[in-house]
Amino acid sequence: MRISICSVLMALASPIVCAQTMQDVLEASKPSDWRELQPENALYLELESGRVIIELAPEFAPRHVENIRTLVRERYFDGLAIIRVQDNFVAQWGDAEGHKPLGTAKKALTAEFTRSAKGLAFTKLPDPDTYAPEIGFVSGFPAARDRADGTAWLTHCYGMVGVGRDTDADSAGGTELYVVIGHAPRQLDRNITVVGRVVHGMEHLSSLPRGTGALGFYEKAEQHVPIRQIRLASEVPASERTPLELLRTDTPTFEALVESRRNRRDEWYKVPAGRIDVCSVPLPVRARD
Amino acid sequence: MRISICSVLMALASPIVCAQTMQDVLEASKPSDWRELQPENALYLELESGRVIIELAPEFAPRHVENIRTLVRERYFDGLAIIRVQDNFVAQWGDAEGHKPLGTAKKALTAEFTRSAKGLAFTKLPDPDTYAPEIGFVSGFPAARDRADGTAWLTHCYGMVGVGRDTDADSAGGTELYVVIGHAPRQLDRNITVVGRVVHGMEHLSSLPRGTGALGFYEKAEQHVPIRQIRLASEVPASERTPLELLRTDTPTFEALVESRRNRRDEWYKVPAGRIDVCSVPLPVRARD
Repeated sequence: MRISICSVLMALASPIVCAQTMQDVLEASKPSDWRELQPENALYLELESGRVIIELAPEFAPRHVENIRTLVRERYFDGLAIIRVQDNFVAQWGDAEGHKPLGTAKKALTAEFTRSAKGLAFTKLPDPDTYAPEIGFVSGFPAARDRADGTAWLTHCYGMVGVGRDTDADSAGGTELYVVIGHAPRQLDRNITVVGRVVHGMEHLSSLPRGTGALGFYEKAEQHVPIRQIRLASEVPASERTPLELLRTDTPTFEALVESRRNRRDEWYKVPAGRIDVCSVPLPVRARD
Repeated sequence: MRISICSVLMALASPIVCAQTMQDVLEASKPSDWRELQPENALYLELESGRVIIELAPEFAPRHVENIRTLVRERYFDGLAIIRVQDNFVAQWGDAEGHKPLGTAKKALTAEFTRSAKGLAFTKLPDPDTYAPEIGFVSGFPAARDRADGTAWLTHCYGMVGVGRDTDADSAGGTELYVVIGHAPRQLDRNITVVGRVVHGMEHLSSLPRGTGALGFYEKAEQHVPIRQIRLASEVPASERTPLELLRTDTPTFEALVESRRNRRDEWYKVPAGRIDVCSVPLPVRARD
């Protein structure tokens, strides 16, 4: 480990804002700056190309997360496929035929587009945002808040996972899920239930061939990308899990990380941006020892 | 063509702001709302998977664009490869070995990170932006402006093409080019010379396998994605060209299009965003008859 003046100052909990790079910040991080990915909130989406891991966000979409857990436990997704990949937008999976039995899960739930901001530990960013009055992080997820109506919601950043729906707000239950694979489509915020984000293996989704049908749907069944299975990490034997830690977003370390990206300190950058988009803040993930 | 009340009002040049969808706006567009992709500003990047078309932006980077034209005319890029694909960031091509002769082109030029805003027809968006005092469009490209220092620059949106460089600002000439394949990395604005944007075939770049080396470089030469050739459209016989038209960005039609995306009118959307990110504005392209 490289010991920089900054990491020493950080260790002393100095209030001095240190000209650190992200690397400096991560090297100086303490074990308590990290949180374990909870097995009951981790979905393993198993494709032929490898494992994608999604962290669920029950704080924001408790009903949908519980319904998705039921769908997973009852093996709803196994053998289904990724059926839509629209460039600079989303990759989406579900039942192309629409005939698979739902078991004890619900087909549709009341929407969870926003929730009350009350009781939510919201780490606010000072940076201005085009779409929301306030942006920041809640439990590791990018989020927004509106004090005027007292609501909060997850923001549609790269890698966020949402629940496809029909025109009716309450028409979905989690049988169709999508992940953002392009520039943040923030116009979807507050229009769709967001249930989590990809924390590992994103490249298995983002590099898929784009569908050539309307809205990026694959035109032929043989183009569908098969889903071998989806499991909750908690269902999988410990030896088959991928143990991950995620950087907490409610710590001075995270604040220093955001600042290191808001104003890059390495010599390559000639003009520091001075501000940062909520969707440009990295959310570090590492293997747990 | 579906005749909506809106398209009739548009045809009458009514000042009424009409609740149109993007489809309505495009259907009501006039031939003069479109501009031809000029052959001397169109690069055909030929991959095994198909043709990618890049529109060059000589208004913003005249020296680099001229140098790239020279590199192309002297066949510098033919037989080189895409050597780096970093997820949610860029795909980059160039000479992995660094030994290919440059011919009469320059290895390095004075940077063109920004230019004077003077004399530039800047169509300003009213929407707030995290990074720049003003954002909008110039000749079909997303751009930003700072009245305080009188500069303007192209913004790093999805599909924008820039010139890879070393630490020195003046270390590059266009031999290494990259395209943005993820969320807009706006921290690069004013730190790198932007020379254009992909207007056709983006999926051939965005769906490439991600590199597993540092910064997304491919680790093995056999992973490189070969570039068959790059040509200016003006070098190619008319019968082999892909004639395209692009929607002008300095017209009432474009203003209506932006509004149709700022506040979606279709029934699916329950909460109109009310604002739009400069990188979320679609820049329509169509085949020319």
